[in-house]
Amino acid sequence: MMRIEVLKRLQEQSEAEADEVRQVLAQNRVTLINVMGSPGSGKTTLLEATLKRLTTDLKCAVLEGDLATLQDAERIADLGVPVAQLLTEGGCHLKPNLVHSALLRLDLSAIDCVFVENVGNLVCPANFDLGEHTRVVVLSVAEGDDKTSKYPYMFKQADAVVVSKLDLLPLCRFDPARTRREMHALNPKAAVFEISAVQETGLEAWVRWVHHAVEQCSTGLR
Amino acid sequence: MMRIEVLKRLQEQSEAEADEVRQVLAQNRVTLINVMGSPGSGKTTLLEATLKRLTTDLKCAVLEGDLATLQDAERIADLGVPVAQLLTEGGCHLKPNLVHSALLRLDLSAIDCVFVENVGNLVCPANFDLGEHTRVVVLSVAEGDDKTSKYPYMFKQADAVVVSKLDLLPLCRFDPARTRREMHALNPKAAVFEISAVQETGLEAWVRWVHHAVEQCSTGLR
Repeated sequence: MMRIEVLKRLQEQSEAEADEVRQVLAQNRVTLINVMGSPGSGKTTLLEATLKRLTTDLKCAVLEGDLATLQDAERIADLGVPVAQLLTEGGCHLKPNLVHSALLRLDLSAIDCVFVENVGNLVCPANFDLGEHTRVVVLSVAEGDDKTSKYPYMFKQADAVVVSKLDLLPLCRFDPARTRREMHALNPKAAVFEISAVQETGLEAWVRWVHHAVEQCSTGLR
Repeated sequence: MMRIEVLKRLQEQSEAEADEVRQVLAQNRVTLINVMGSPGSGKTTLLEATLKRLTTDLKCAVLEGDLATLQDAERIADLGVPVAQLLTEGGCHLKPNLVHSALLRLDLSAIDCVFVENVGNLVCPANFDLGEHTRVVVLSVAEGDDKTSKYPYMFKQADAVVVSKLDLLPLCRFDPARTRREMHALNPKAAVFEISAVQETGLEAWVRWVHHAVEQCSTGLR
């Protein structure tokens, strides 16, 4: 009973912190996109490819969530994109208070869209509202096509799924049709993209979707 | 303060449950190997390849941890190996009480070694003692060679790391030497294996290590 009360209080606190994030975003007309997926699914590589294509029209920034090291933030900084590394020091997901304080350190008046790369984890981040407008899950073909059914909580809440590393497809047990079919059954509203950042294929449709998401969001925020 | 007390109580409870697992294992002279790794790192495929090679000399069983579906347990059952599917229904790691009750449903007098395949997650399972004798982490080359440094908590506690899907190496940004170097710095006692279950390479050394682990453990249990 005591445990339930404490968890409820923590959940309420987390929701209030997500509301604070939403307030900051609305005040500054900034779209927040929460990018999730397993370790090594290709989240940072997707962001690198996306930022190269987006930054001509949209001003972007990135918050990099990790347990340890600055490696991902350094990769983004190399593109000249504003970035902050959020270290959880062992924590399995980002929390809205960490996102909130990182947002306040950015010059939000000069930014249209912030990507948050969550901790590599196909389970826990699904349960935490960061105040984001959009949730994207990256799934590499090397992970296998059973993942949508085995990790339904993450995929149920996605606005888009990016199937990544399509260049590995000939060597992997992965049927893209199965993923589309299972995603449609689980969450028919989610967009599904198939990309290879290495071969630079499939990125146009995904980048158009991001553009559209930012436009929709800034219309709503006006 | 209240939160800290509750967490402490939960931790004590979890440790007591892990002790109960240890007791059951000792009474029945059974070795427990906790296999962890990201979703799609190749844990089930490694177990399939391992069981095919082990079951001539050792009697094995498997406990399959997943959020949802029976897919992994069905794969193991196809080999004629006793298996139980442990469903966490969204939970990000296995708990010792679940392992304990699953062990009691097996005929342990006829088993030498139980593999627990934990939930696909490179973060949370590291924090939970299941009462196991040995911890193995599976890392696919498709995940990238930055994972040992980015997820140090998992790798610090491993007795062995199995670098998997070596058949994908020519197409991936993965330097096996970097992983060996970083593992040596982080955790010099851990054994590192490089395998391809598809090409059936590297499995002999790994299977010998499992044999040795079971022998050591049953000597200790005598």
